[in-house]
Order: sequence, then C-alpha cells, then structure tokens
Amino acid sequence: QAAPQAQDAKIADLQRQVDELKAMVRAMQAAHGAAPVVIAQTPATSAPAATTPQPVQMAAVAAPAPVSAPEKKKAWYEKLQLRGYTQLRMNEIISGDKTAPAGRSRLRSVQDSGINENGNLSIRRARLVVQGDISNRVSLYLQGDLSAAVSNQSGSEPRQNFFQRRDAYADVYLDKAKTLKLRLGQSKVPFGWENLQSSSNRVPLDRTDAINSPVPGERDIGVVAYYTPSKIQAIWDELTHDGQKLFGNYGALGVGVYNGQGTNRIERNGSYMTVAMATMPFRLDGLGGMFEGQVAEFGASGILNKFRPEIRSGGVSAVDYDDNHVGAHAMIYPKPFGIQAEWTWGRTPEFDRATGTIKAKDSSGGYVMAMVRVPKTPIGQIIPFARYQTYRGGWKVATNAPRLETEEYEIGVEWLPLKELEVTLNYANVSRTEADERRTGRAKGDLVRAQVQWNY
Amino acid sequence: QAAPQAQDAKIADLQRQVDELKAMVRAMQAAHGAAPVVIAQTPATSAPAATTPQPVQMAAVAAPAPVSAPEKKKAWYEKLQLRGYTQLRMNEIISGDKTAPAGRSRLRSVQDSGINENGNLSIRRARLVVQGDISNRVSLYLQGDLSAAVSNQSGSEPRQNFFQRRDAYADVYLDKAKTLKLRLGQSKVPFGWENLQSSSNRVPLDRTDAINSPVPGERDIGVVAYYTPSKIQAIWDELTHDGQKLFGNYGALGVGVYNGQGTNRIERNGSYMTVAMATMPFRLDGLGGMFEGQVAEFGASGILNKFRPEIRSGGVSAVDYDDNHVGAHAMIYPKPFGIQAEWTWGRTPEFDRATGTIKAKDSSGGYVMAMVRVPKTPIGQIIPFARYQTYRGGWKVATNAPRLETEEYEIGVEWLPLKELEVTLNYANVSRTEADERRTGRAKGDLVRAQVQWNY
Amino acid sequence: QAAPQAQDAKIADLQRQVDELKAMVRAMQAAHGAAPVVIAQTPATSAPAATTPQPVQMAAVAAPAPVSAPEKKKAWYEKLQLRGYTQLRMNEIISGDKTAPAGRSRLRSVQDSGINENGNLSIRRARLVVQGDISNRVSLYLQGDLSAAVSNQSGSEPRQNFFQRRDAYADVYLDKAKTLKLRLGQSKVPFGWENLQSSSNRVPLDRTDAINSPVPGERDIGVVAYYTPSKIQAIWDELTHDGQKLFGNYGALGVGVYNGQGTNRIERNGSYMTVAMATMPFRLDGLGGMFEGQVAEFGASGILNKFRPEIRSGGVSAVDYDDNHVGAHAMIYPKPFGIQAEWTWGRTPEFDRATGTIKAKDSSGGYVMAMVRVPKTPIGQIIPFARYQTYRGGWKVATNAPRLETEEYEIGVEWLPLKELEVTLNYANVSRTEADERRTGRAKGDLVRAQVQWNY
Repeated sequence: QAAPQAQDAKIADLQRQVDELKAMVRAMQAAHGAAPVVIAQTPATSAPAATTPQPVQMAAVAAPAPVSAPEKKKAWYEKLQLRGYTQLRMNEIISGDKTAPAGRSRLRSVQDSGINENGNLSIRRARLVVQGDISNRVSLYLQGDLSAAVSNQSGSEPRQNFFQRRDAYADVYLDKAKTLKLRLGQSKVPFGWENLQSSSNRVPLDRTDAINSPVPGERDIGVVAYYTPSKIQAIWDELTHDGQKLFGNYGALGVGVYNGQGTNRIERNGSYMTVAMATMPFRLDGLGGMFEGQVAEFGASGILNKFRPEIRSGGVSAVDYDDNHVGAHAMIYPKPFGIQAEWTWGRTPEFDRATGTIKAKDSSGGYVMAMVRVPKTPIGQIIPFARYQTYRGGWKVATNAPRLETEEYEIGVEWLPLKELEVTLNYANVSRTEADERRTGRAKGDLVRAQVQWNY
Repeated sequence: QAAPQAQDAKIADLQRQVDELKAMVRAMQAAHGAAPVVIAQTPATSAPAATTPQPVQMAAVAAPAPVSAPEKKKAWYEKLQLRGYTQLRMNEIISGDKTAPAGRSRLRSVQDSGINENGNLSIRRARLVVQGDISNRVSLYLQGDLSAAVSNQSGSEPRQNFFQRRDAYADVYLDKAKTLKLRLGQSKVPFGWENLQSSSNRVPLDRTDAINSPVPGERDIGVVAYYTPSKIQAIWDELTHDGQKLFGNYGALGVGVYNGQGTNRIERNGSYMTVAMATMPFRLDGLGGMFEGQVAEFGASGILNKFRPEIRSGGVSAVDYDDNHVGAHAMIYPKPFGIQAEWTWGRTPEFDRATGTIKAKDSSGGYVMAMVRVPKTPIGQIIPFARYQTYRGGWKVATNAPRLETEEYEIGVEWLPLKELEVTLNYANVSRTEADERRTGRAKGDLVRAQVQWNY
Repeated sequence: QAAPQAQDAKIADLQRQVDELKAMVRAMQAAHGAAPVVIAQTPATSAPAATTPQPVQMAAVAAPAPVSAPEKKKAWYEKLQLRGYTQLRMNEIISGDKTAPAGRSRLRSVQDSGINENGNLSIRRARLVVQGDISNRVSLYLQGDLSAAVSNQSGSEPRQNFFQRRDAYADVYLDKAKTLKLRLGQSKVPFGWENLQSSSNRVPLDRTDAINSPVPGERDIGVVAYYTPSKIQAIWDELTHDGQKLFGNYGALGVGVYNGQGTNRIERNGSYMTVAMATMPFRLDGLGGMFEGQVAEFGASGILNKFRPEIRSGGVSAVDYDDNHVGAHAMIYPKPFGIQAEWTWGRTPEFDRATGTIKAKDSSGGYVMAMVRVPKTPIGQIIPFARYQTYRGGWKVATNAPRLETEEYEIGVEWLPLKELEVTLNYANVSRTEADERRTGRAKGDLVRAQVQWNY
C-alpha cells in the first residue's frame, strides 16, 4: 500500500499533467479560432483541506456544462466546402457519316460537341462547386464549369474553357426537420429524373435527347419549393448508404416558377415557366423472393412555358411558342439488376420545312435502360448497362429550333477502380438528324467512347 | 473518509484518464498538422515517493511553457477564406415607357440590365471572393462575379454568366500597426463613398448614376496608398460592432494612380488617372440629446483623368477627353435615424447632338437618402429608406458616351429575416434618358423591385 | 504532510478538471468532424476500493490504443487547398518603334500584350489553383487564370479578365512510391524546361519565343506518363529545400499524347501529337573546388505533330502542316552563380511572303541566361540575371502563322522583400518582327519593365 507521501507526489504529478493538457487544449482552441473557454479556476493544490468531499463532487458534475455551453462559431471551412468533378473523354466515330456534303446531316450529338469527325480527347465538364450550410436555415450551392466555350474569338489564347455558371442558389428551410425548402436562384428545373441526376452519377455518358429537350442545360433562374416527407427521405438515405446513384438533393414533390428561356440566357418574354414534379420510392420487400431489399421509384413531371427560339437571321423570335411537356419515369434500383425508363410528350417549337418557319409541334420520346450493379469485384465496382433511346421533335435551344429524329442503342460499362476515379466505356449504334435546319436526312454510324472521371 | 487503498485506486484511475486524454489531444494535433508537442515524460506512477512536493509543483508551473512555444505554421484555410454573396432580383415596370418606338428612350437603367420590358428574375451579382492575410505584412483580395455577360455568342449553352474579375489586389502594410498600406493591382478607385461601399452592404438596390458615372464598375488597375489613424479606425470598429453598414476596409485618406480606362478594359492612352479621397467620422456625443451615441462622417474626393470612349463606328476614340471630377459626401449613421448625401461635379465625355461628336462637357448630380434602422423587431432587423437622385452628364463607358438625364424617387425597406439572408423591397418613380445616343427624350414610369441576397 | 481528507479533496478536484478537459476535447473533436471517440467509462470516484492497483495500471497502458485507432476521415480542406499568384506589371517602351505606319512592325511581344504604345499597368496573370491529394493514389490539379481576354465585346462592363482554364488534370500513381504516374486531362506538354517551369518561379518576366513557339500556352488535353527514380527525386528535393527554383512536379522522364491544336482550342484534325522528354540532375561535388554542392541538369525533348493554323479569311486551315521539334537544355543551379541555356530546332507552319500561303518551314532558336543567387541580404534574397535570346521561325498560333525574327538582350534583378512578395525589374534591348504577316521589317527599341508578384 502506498504511503500518503507517495500519494501526495502522485496527486501533484497528476495536477502537472492536467495543467499541461489544459494548455495544449487551449492552444488548439486558439489555433482553430474557437471562442475562448473560461475554465473555473481550480482551487486544487493550494485549497484548504475540505472535510466533506460532497460540494466538490457537485462541482465536478456541474463543471462540464459551461464548457460545452459556448457554442463554437464555425470556421468558414466548416460551413463551406469546395468539391467537383472532371470528365476527360475520347470520342471516335468508327463507321458511318463522319462527314457529309453540305445540306446532309453528319453524325453529331446535341449532348456532346466532342462527337465530330476529329474525335480525340475533350474535357466535357470541369466542375467546381462551393456549397455548404451557411446556417441552420440556409444552405448554399454555387457551381460553375471550367469548360464553357466562348464563340467568335480569334488571336492567340482566349477561346475555349471559360468558367461559366451552372448553379447559384440558396436553400431556405421552412421547418426545423428540413422537409420543406424554398430554392432561390439558378437551379435545375424539376422535370425528368435523368435531368435532375448529376452527370457525375449518371451511368451512361450523356442524357437522352427526349428527356433533355424540354430543359437543355437543365437550369434556369427561378423559385421552387421542394417537400420531402421524412419516410421517403429515409428510403433515399438507405439507398445512398448502399451506394446507389440517386437523383440528388431534390424533393419528392417540387413546384416552381422560372424565367423559362433556358440556362444562362436572357429572358425574352415577360411570362414565367411553371413546373411541377412528384417522385416516390417504394420498398419491394413485400413482394418477397428476388424483390427482397429492392426499391422501385415512380414519378411524373410537367412544364407549362412560352419560348422564343433564336432565329437564323439573328436575335430571337418576336413571337412566343408553346413549350409544354409532361413526363413519367419508373425504375428499380440495381440490386444487382436494375431497370430505368422515362418517357415524355409535349408541344415545342420546331422548324417547319414546308413553310420555312418555326411552329409549335408535337414532340415525344424516351428511353429504357437496363443495368447490373456488381459492387465488389477484384478490380472494384462495375456496372454494365444497355440503353435504347428515341426522340421525335424540336430542339428549341438551337438556332431555328431544328427537328431531331434520334434512335440510339448503347452498351457500356462503368468501372470504379478507385472511389474517386470512374472509367466508362461505351459503344453506340446511332441514327440521328443533325441539329441544323439547313441539313436534311439522318446520319447513321457507330461510335466508340471512353471517359475517365475524377471526383474531388 | 476514504481509505488510502481507495485513494490509490482513484489516483491510478485518474492517471489512466489523463493518459487517454493525452492520446486524444496528440491525435488531434497530428490531424490538424500541428507541430508535435514534446511532453515531458511523466515519472508519475512509478516514481519513488517524494518527501517534499515543492519541486514537482514548480514543474507544474513551468511545464505549460514549451507547449505554447512551437508557433504553429498556419494551414492554408487559416490564411485564406472563401466568401461571397448572391443577389436574386425581380424587376417589373408597372407603368410607363416599358417600350418605345425607335429613336425614343425606353425605361432602362445603366445600373441594372434586368430593368427592361420583360422583367422577371435575374441574378444581378454572384460573387466569390478569396481573401486573407498571407502574412503579417501582406493581405490578399481576389474577387470575381459569376454573372458577367459575354456578347456575340450563339449556339446552345455558352452565353451569359461567366466568371469575370472584380478585384485582384494585395495590401502591403508599411507599418506594424497597419495604419498605412499600399494596395497593388485591380481594386476600387477611391472616389465616392457609395462607390466604395460593397453592394452587399448598400441599403438601396443600385448605386446612383451621378456618383457612379466617374467610375462605372468602380475598379481599375493601379497603385493606391491608404492611411487610417488608429483613432478613426476605432470609431469605425465601434460602428461595425454596432452592426452599421460601413464603406469597407478603405482608408481615411487615399491617394492613387490608375490606368484610367475603367474596369476590365484595355488601357487606351499612356496617361495615368490620379485620384485622392479623404473621409472622417466624428462622434456627435458632444451635442448631447438625440445625438448621444451617434456618428457623422464627412469627406471629399477628386479625380484627374483622360478618357477615350468607344465609338459607334467601332473601336475607341482616337483622342483623349477630359474626365475630371470632384465629389463630397456627408452622413449621419442611422441610430435609429440616419441621413446620407453625396454630390459630384465634373467634366466628362458626352455625345453632342448638335455636332454629332463627343465633347468634354459639364456633369453634375447626387443623391440624398434618409433611413431608419430598427435592429430588433420580432421578424429581424428592418431598415426603411427613401432616396432621391439626379444626374445630368455623359455616361462615358457606353458607346459614344451618351448624355444621361436622371431623376429618381425611391422608397423601400431592407429586411433581415436571418443574418445571412436579406430581402429588399423597392418602389421607384423614374424619369431617365436611355443610355443610347440614338434615342432621345426621357422615359418615365414606375418600377417595383425585389431582391433576395444570401451572404456566405 | 497532507491529511487524507486534503488528498480526497485534491483527487476530487483533479477528477473535476479531467472531466472538464474531456468535455473540451470532445467538443473540439465534434467541431472538427472527428469520429466519436469512445472513452471507457471511468468507475473512478464511486469505485469500490481496489486492493491491488496492478489491473488498473494495465488498463492505463492499454487504454490509449483505441483512441488513436479510429483513422480520422480527412476533411475536404485537408485534402484540397486553394493557392495561386498574381502578377502586376508596368511596361514602358522608352525608345524605339512604339508605333509604326501600317505595314511596318511595331515593338510588340507575343509573350505579353501589355507591351504596346500605351504601357502603363496590366495584370499579366491572376491565377487560382485548387489542388491536393484526393486519395493515396489520385491527386488533383485545377488551375484557371482570372486574366483571360474575351474578344468582340462591346457595351459597358463585360470584356477582359474572365476566368479561363489553364490546367485540369488528375495524377494517378501507378506505384506506392509514387515514382510513376499517369497524368490525365489538360496539362503542360513536356517540351522545354522553361515551358514546364511555373511563371511564378521563372526569374525573367517572360518565356523565350524559341522555346515557347512549339507550345504557346504550354498546355493541351492529353495523357502523359511521368517517371522519376527516387535518386533523382532526392536531388530535386534537396534543391527545393535549398530554395532553388525548379521546373515543378514533372518527371525525369515523360512520354505523352495530346490533341496537338494548343491550349483551350478545338481539335482540328484527328491526329495526336506525341511528345517525349528526359531531364537529369547531376551533383557536381566530385569536381571539387567551386563546384562543391552544385547541381547541373541536362535534358532533351521532342514533339511530333500536325497543326492547322487559323487563317486570315476566317476559320482554320483545311490542311495539316508538319509541326515537329526537338530541344535540349542544360543548366547549373545558381549557388551562387548559375547558368541556364536551351535550344530548339524544328519545322513549323510559317507564312511564306513569296507565295502568300502558309508552308512548313525550318525554325530554330534558344537562349542563354546567367544569374547570381544571393539568398541573404539585409533586404531579402536578390537574383540579378542577364539573358540573351534569338528565334527564327513561324508563330503557329497567330493568324496565318507569321514569321518571328527575335533578338533580345535583357538584364534585370528579382528581389524578394518578403517570402510572399517578389519584385522584378528589367531592362531589355529588343529587335523583333511583329506577329502579324501584314507587317514587315523589324522593330527595334528599349524597354523598361517592372513586376510585383504576390504568392498565396
């Protein structure tokens, strides 16, 4: 048994160690910009002997409270974060209408200008995002792309790859549980599941013409309310945790108004575009068997808009055209086998060859995609996929709103050798009109494509 | 009373807890890149019993010193920070000259291109700033706007909302107290209190034509010295602490030289613009009564410059025009009632209708603004305000330097429902010429405007 | 000697302090997003007296392990960092062909558009970089310049100083020692030591025409493999530690393929540019005497490419031109005296005056630079330098690939008053053709230049 002297020494030594720790913790707090923590002066070693330990023990219980009390003011880097992703692509037309005489369609795509007779490498997206919770009630999302072209340049350096806005919005939460939010600013228009899903999460390289045609660039300036019941959020959270590729932090229910002239374009009429969307995930466990653990999702969306296309003679059309669309989507998340389909019907501006003018005409199309998710292989996760898409209708954001006639069969595989690195290989058999009303007929051919994407 | 055995156990347990804490603190230090802290090996539990506790106690006193000694090298995020603000606006002309026949002025503003016949939503500013103290002697400020238009584009996506430079300067402090600094690079020209104040802090939506006309865009490339006596800084610090909206980290005295051709424009003559400014806050406590706790501020600024406007036939004018201005400002910071006024007089390039050429002509104008700051209401701070502005003179940065004739009465209110969210509502009665020398007469009308601003 | 009661009080007080510390440490961990640390519940003060302290002591030894175990997930700001540099310049032509009649060369440089009859101030570069190790195997580098011009603009604000991409690449390390890496995306083409060295590290203001002519803008989209044996890396690390200005994180051996049409330009033919480079540092200690501690470096690089210059009538040439180059470099790092030289020979597109067409023609040139590095003076490090450069050949990235004939003698000094601030003064005697095939003859003159650079 230790003598009281030895105990004294041990107690004194403990006090020294505690003092050292205090100094270290204070230094760290100071270094990290914490509010100074007032520590009750310890009467410890010099205190007169207390006959009963109770009051001191009470202090021990009460003491921690003031420590945790001074709610630390968050540093900027704890509120905001930088992130993004970059996509390096190689496109090669291996057979078909690489080029064509004037007046005839060449094999091109409105989804990737890198598909052309030269092929080679291109950076499709180089995204940088500043996002975070500014406070408990307001979140920020500011995204730009360092791959935007600027036309009509000549001289030595300044042409391609400028930084252009994609998103610039604030989410204002209307309830503490964050089920209801108002999204203010430039953000994605809630039309079409595929449009809302980030390109960094999409398995195929490009969106489909049909689903993208109502909202090319996907974004506009507006105000939109999103509502997500917590039960639905729970299903999505589970899917996210499982590694599934969701459509992002949108709501189960979205209703909004936007300018309606498209991404990064000047508003051209005084009218607003109105849009609404609903999507709902369901657990399929009840079905048992192969559906155990699987989740399906169904939904629909609609747009009412007036649009003014740019015209060949310069500027934009002086009259408004109907630009109304409805869409539906359905999917089973891949576990391991998944299927995903969307379809859209509408009236949209389209160049009419007979009269040489733009008219509002019917449009329709969609896609069906099958995929198999194999999360664990010796070389990392792989997702083989196959997709068919079709579209008939105007492409309103190209000059004179040319008609697209698209038929595409794709097979490919997405491979994740590392969590932050995605490789996608893709073969496509394509039949498309070029998005130029001065060229006729359909270009046909075969396309091999590859992409490396790094996420940061 | 506790038996010595029980005390032994308690001491041993304390030692275990302290060891755990040490490990945790060390892990945190390592994670945050701190220099390793050498802790004196504790002889604690295995130490032979010390007969006198004094030397150990002395160690306890001395120990903390080495801990605070290793002056930690700052991480990049402790030196630099990201911040900014975004302004989402709605402009609607509710009556008056929304449009006009060719040759007649329409209701437009050089301060916001979103004021037009279409109205609807626009993002006036989407600012992102990288700033911080690179060292004790040098500070950085790098600001861009993700809302800059690029003209002469056509095609699908690439047009509006590119990221363009606003500020790119370094402050070099010439004394330890930081009262004197040299600002190098692209920065605001110290002319006009309103011009120097950040748009994120201004109560009304736009600057006034008169005060802004000598420096549209407010910035230029140059070198400027700022001096602020510490007594003046103390008054401003107090105002800031009180939540007042100041004009920013400029000096009480500023003297500088700039290229003189304006923000983000190529220098067109070899001459420099010279500029000087002085501003001085005064405590009004001496006046007693309603002036108790209030602060007034007075100041003046001047510019000497030669300017070459762009001309209708393309390029810039081949001759220099006088572009000289003086200005004065006076204000009482709102507590709760405030008043603010500025006036400017000068000679500036202006299109002369009689001769069809640009000439250097007289310009003058200013504004008076009254406001009431109510920091605490059940819904957050509100600031109702009213402003009158007038200007007669050239607008040098528009093609052919058209003459502006502006008369505007505004009332509005700025409301802060949350610290990071500002809502401004505004009604204006306007009489303006359009900034186009090919249109004559004045457009008149009424304007309703709203803005949501989020600060990050 | 202390009574047991006093000891009890002290122990209780220690426990209180330890509890406080724990709360503080937990708060800090929570604030920094650390994984929650489970602390073994302390039976301490209420524990029954233990008869033997041994088991408790063992616990004290074992306890720290689980604390350090939860390998903390890195926060975004520990993986990525923001950095960059800005260069403010003043250029003045003090004698010579400031201007010239149409058809005759004026004193201009393809390396700095700020060298013109107006002189004054310009911001040559305002760089912002996001970089970091995304994981053990992948690093990110994303750089833009907030100084890129956009042509064909008119109106009020939007013209110069947009943010344009410079680099957008990921390094994927193929071995654990990181000696071999694959660089994917937009990055510098490994041709010419001077091209690879960052402008923030180069002692003179501009690169030389000869070495830069194969790769103006220095970058392209491609895939390149870099290999650096660890012995070579060790020499470079030592030089870096010594404060020498190296050429950056490239390899001793580089082999790559790129599109070949240059920085931020659309690929114009389907062919790839292939490039290879080798560079090797040698310690000169073996030579003894004045070579003690000095390091020399030698290397060579080569490019095979087909290029299509822009033509005066608009668009790019319809035919490919040979664009093949070899280069060699040699240097002794300044300690204190250093010397550096590079030379290049090739065939490149060049406008042929006789036929009025572009042809592939011979090009050659290089530079020799001497410098003295004085790291410690009362005013900070200074590096006086002198450089001679010459070039004869086409400048492929200017319209119609005009022929350059360059002869330039420069002397100057780089001064670091502070670590983050560099001042460079420079005098040059110049004889150059202007990079415009419509102007003939050589412009001659004298140039005084100054630069302030801040690094962040």
